[in-house]
Amino acid sequence: MTEHTDRIKKLIDSAQPGNSQAQPFYCDDELFSVDMQKIIMRKWLLIDHVSRIPEPGQYFLYEVGSESIIVIRENDSTVNALYNVCRHRGSLVCLESEGKRTQLTCPYHAWSYRLDGSLKSARHMPDDFNPANYHLHKCHLRIHHGFVFINLSPDAAPDFDEDFAVFEPYLAFHGFADAKIAHKASYPTQANWKLIVENFFECYHCAPAHPEYCSRHPSDALLAFGAGPSSGPADAVDKFKPTLDAWEKNASKLGRPIGSVDDDEYSSHLKLLQQRPHRNDIKSETQDGKPVACLMGKRKDFDLGRMYLSFSPFNHIVACNDFAALIVFTPRSTTLTDVDITWLVDDQADDVDVERMIWMWDVTTRQDKEITENNQRGINSSRYRPGRLSDQEQRVATFNKWYLNQLTS
Amino acid sequence: MTEHTDRIKKLIDSAQPGNSQAQPFYCDDELFSVDMQKIIMRKWLLIDHVSRIPEPGQYFLYEVGSESIIVIRENDSTVNALYNVCRHRGSLVCLESEGKRTQLTCPYHAWSYRLDGSLKSARHMPDDFNPANYHLHKCHLRIHHGFVFINLSPDAAPDFDEDFAVFEPYLAFHGFADAKIAHKASYPTQANWKLIVENFFECYHCAPAHPEYCSRHPSDALLAFGAGPSSGPADAVDKFKPTLDAWEKNASKLGRPIGSVDDDEYSSHLKLLQQRPHRNDIKSETQDGKPVACLMGKRKDFDLGRMYLSFSPFNHIVACNDFAALIVFTPRSTTLTDVDITWLVDDQADDVDVERMIWMWDVTTRQDKEITENNQRGINSSRYRPGRLSDQEQRVATFNKWYLNQLTS
Amino acid sequence: MTEHTDRIKKLIDSAQPGNSQAQPFYCDDELFSVDMQKIIMRKWLLIDHVSRIPEPGQYFLYEVGSESIIVIRENDSTVNALYNVCRHRGSLVCLESEGKRTQLTCPYHAWSYRLDGSLKSARHMPDDFNPANYHLHKCHLRIHHGFVFINLSPDAAPDFDEDFAVFEPYLAFHGFADAKIAHKASYPTQANWKLIVENFFECYHCAPAHPEYCSRHPSDALLAFGAGPSSGPADAVDKFKPTLDAWEKNASKLGRPIGSVDDDEYSSHLKLLQQRPHRNDIKSETQDGKPVACLMGKRKDFDLGRMYLSFSPFNHIVACNDFAALIVFTPRSTTLTDVDITWLVDDQADDVDVERMIWMWDVTTRQDKEITENNQRGINSSRYRPGRLSDQEQRVATFNKWYLNQLTS
Repeated sequence: MTEHTDRIKKLIDSAQPGNSQAQPFYCDDELFSVDMQKIIMRKWLLIDHVSRIPEPGQYFLYEVGSESIIVIRENDSTVNALYNVCRHRGSLVCLESEGKRTQLTCPYHAWSYRLDGSLKSARHMPDDFNPANYHLHKCHLRIHHGFVFINLSPDAAPDFDEDFAVFEPYLAFHGFADAKIAHKASYPTQANWKLIVENFFECYHCAPAHPEYCSRHPSDALLAFGAGPSSGPADAVDKFKPTLDAWEKNASKLGRPIGSVDDDEYSSHLKLLQQRPHRNDIKSETQDGKPVACLMGKRKDFDLGRMYLSFSPFNHIVACNDFAALIVFTPRSTTLTDVDITWLVDDQADDVDVERMIWMWDVTTRQDKEITENNQRGINSSRYRPGRLSDQEQRVATFNKWYLNQLTS
Repeated sequence: MTEHTDRIKKLIDSAQPGNSQAQPFYCDDELFSVDMQKIIMRKWLLIDHVSRIPEPGQYFLYEVGSESIIVIRENDSTVNALYNVCRHRGSLVCLESEGKRTQLTCPYHAWSYRLDGSLKSARHMPDDFNPANYHLHKCHLRIHHGFVFINLSPDAAPDFDEDFAVFEPYLAFHGFADAKIAHKASYPTQANWKLIVENFFECYHCAPAHPEYCSRHPSDALLAFGAGPSSGPADAVDKFKPTLDAWEKNASKLGRPIGSVDDDEYSSHLKLLQQRPHRNDIKSETQDGKPVACLMGKRKDFDLGRMYLSFSPFNHIVACNDFAALIVFTPRSTTLTDVDITWLVDDQADDVDVERMIWMWDVTTRQDKEITENNQRGINSSRYRPGRLSDQEQRVATFNKWYLNQLTS
Repeated sequence: MTEHTDRIKKLIDSAQPGNSQAQPFYCDDELFSVDMQKIIMRKWLLIDHVSRIPEPGQYFLYEVGSESIIVIRENDSTVNALYNVCRHRGSLVCLESEGKRTQLTCPYHAWSYRLDGSLKSARHMPDDFNPANYHLHKCHLRIHHGFVFINLSPDAAPDFDEDFAVFEPYLAFHGFADAKIAHKASYPTQANWKLIVENFFECYHCAPAHPEYCSRHPSDALLAFGAGPSSGPADAVDKFKPTLDAWEKNASKLGRPIGSVDDDEYSSHLKLLQQRPHRNDIKSETQDGKPVACLMGKRKDFDLGRMYLSFSPFNHIVACNDFAALIVFTPRSTTLTDVDITWLVDDQADDVDVERMIWMWDVTTRQDKEITENNQRGINSSRYRPGRLSDQEQRVATFNKWYLNQLTS
């Protein structure tokens, strides 16, 4: 792996625990390149739901940094992730963001690849040309409970099963493998990816910035657990405990597996899982609190709660009883990050009311786009200094430590 | 302060007195960063007129380089300049370019600051958190004869009173403290700030580029004094002297303080002041020569003259008897400079004819925008070489020497 | 000349013959600067046809890299090429892309130059100012058979006559000196100039990407000679030989000089010339195969063939019997290249059907713009590797070797 330059080393050494990061971490192109190599291309990235490509030959493109990845279904049992770069002279092979192909033919010189990326035909090549050496570069890929994960490492990927086994009962209960996509929306944001992660890792901003979101949740829950089991002040956690215990007891009776996950700064993926009730009178995270679709997974009845599950800082699943939002952060450049949301429902659901379903995350993500962009603009000042974090931002402190550990590991 | 790199040192050493500067001084991002640190953030910048914010809580933003500054009235006697960067995680605190606030509440996490920038409230902070350490960073600020000056130096600002005392009688006579804003306009210009200053520091281009401007002024005055007492050829100065003497004698009788200021290349702010007549038949710098408002300041009658006064190369006040134009140059990046004009009249003036008042500087500044942008484009060529200055560009030569002195001091 | 940095040296040393180039050659700003200095500013560039400026004082601008060049007719026998940079303070002298002037007066300070670039007048200059030292910087220029060539070298240009004498009979036969411009069109392309040259130096992409082009040409000719005498596989050349021989015999009878030019990687300009038949039933490269204008040059009758002639990789003349297309590639920045086409007909031609004339190159160049832009986008990936060239891309291999030779010479 690349060694850090003296400048980068100095920056890493000067980080102050309990504070936000120094300016260059959010503004500097060299550091973004380090982020790509040491973190973004090393982690398992949850990028979409496999129901997007049910039929053999269906594909979609996923773009991260300067990379374009083709995710394509080869047959009923296999999906492949291939770099969208022809092995001849480097043209993009697929131009449209999604489609269906019987083979992948480069539009430039018509080199044709099978759906597994192997080279099928190339006209007029020299006699010693061996097609076996010209396979499209492969990404690591896993389909897991219906979710599509890729890893862009040129070497071995981290052990998927070991890292994510802890989520097993929750994913099974929620029935993500039997889900379908109900809607998709994009919120490209002019901010460094770490500002967007930090924003998602604290609910300290919820009260000032997200009135709609706050209207769906008990205010003491947001304070205690706004961004994970260890994200709020200790006294707030204690105060909310009786409410949480009561809800867990009832939800458990209705079949929900109870538990939480709260990876620390030494973990591989900084995973997170927590479950807790909505406001009492709310069945689903909609404006009127009423569901938009049938129950998902193994549920028999509404338990008035929700789950928040992250495989890594780059993606977050927020699941009600009847729908879930998969929120994906994709770094594109130092100060541009794609934010994409995929709403999932049970694959048997019909007549889903999309407007009502997307209301909360759509309005909240538009607000997050604005506040993170203003955060980026303020950080550009010569007077910006890493600022002290509140008791409600403990997950941001953990993320910052995890981030620095990743850079130096 | 930062030491110069070898490359910058070499560039500075190779400058040729009496010529325009070498290409990198106008095109190079590293040099723009040096300009920011050694000059733009060290000088007193005249940025606006205080009548813009008469009521407590009224503010406007001023943006220079990557900095955003909040200029806000705290109470009847105090105006503050604060960096628009929340001390928590760095968000912009004020988003709109102007407005009115009872306190400054960051839209991200609701940290609230008093109008003096002190931290009033921050929720859920650790026990050892001391709000006194989280004051919004302050800019040096002075209100002087109604003009708002700021200085962005992290250390002490230059001595305001010592530097600018010489202007006292002129500012008092013109009554700027009792002025109000009649109009504002912006002319963002795709050129390095030094090209815009150089353009304003010579009237060699007036004849080819500014027919409207030339129609208001005696041509021998433009040649002799087009951009200051020492900007023209010696014989032209001699030739115009009788006209000037006669006008000064009459203007003095009408109460105008007579004199000029012409800072040299070793000065702190390269100040400038000169006064001289319009064409004989003209009372004001308008198309028909007629005034647009009542007399400003201590005047009793029109004296058919005008004053040109610069506190620094970044701002210029051009005052007729009935109105004045404050022209402000604000560097934003290597090749982008904001040019903003604020027209001032006596605060008792009513029915001001804005069209007629702005005619001359509006048309002239549009012309200047075009010629400086074409200057920048030409300088991008590999064949551009510093060119010999004319006898009518002596103030440009002085500015170039002053600029290099600033870089090396 | 500039010495290469270690980084550039390493890149040059690591090139693999028979493959496309490594990523930085197409994406890196430092390498574009090297390309400008070592190649683009050193070669004779064919930029237009002189019939564009028939009258004294008529000029057009040509922009390459950061340079703007004025090509202006001084009198009936002389055309000059001058850098569009005033010798005073560097403004552009000519702002419009074409026009007519009796002298070149800078719009900034009115320095006036004669049509040969010599300084005619500059007001108020110091006594020791010598106008002879302030000539507009000159480009080398040659008018040759009606074509305008410039060379931007600050030193001597390569020997024009020696380099291009071989083309003499062909240029004379085609009558380019007696041509006029029938149409012009621009296709600015977001790709490095070398991708655009490589694309033009092979017809391997013709079958997949250019159906209209392929409909005008025998498929075995495209395979054998798609991009020059040595661009295709040896067996294809052999197969097409009888057809070519028969056509050459007939064309020769009709007066056409027979021959080809195929410069190797050690040449100065990598010149190319080849002649061959269209499809049997086609008189001209139009959709219906019918001519659009009278015969050009010394022809008495249609010979059903076409000529492809390059003075350098930056320009290509494709000549039918009745019209010719001059295709010019002009590097502007690392990933932007201007592609301009000028269609020429005999200067006596009237009622030229422009639609039909431009059909083939217009549609083909739009296709080329798209495929080279997609090529550039794919090459941005970290997984792009130089790819193996086909037997039909031998001219690309030669170009790559020539390019590296130029960098190291």
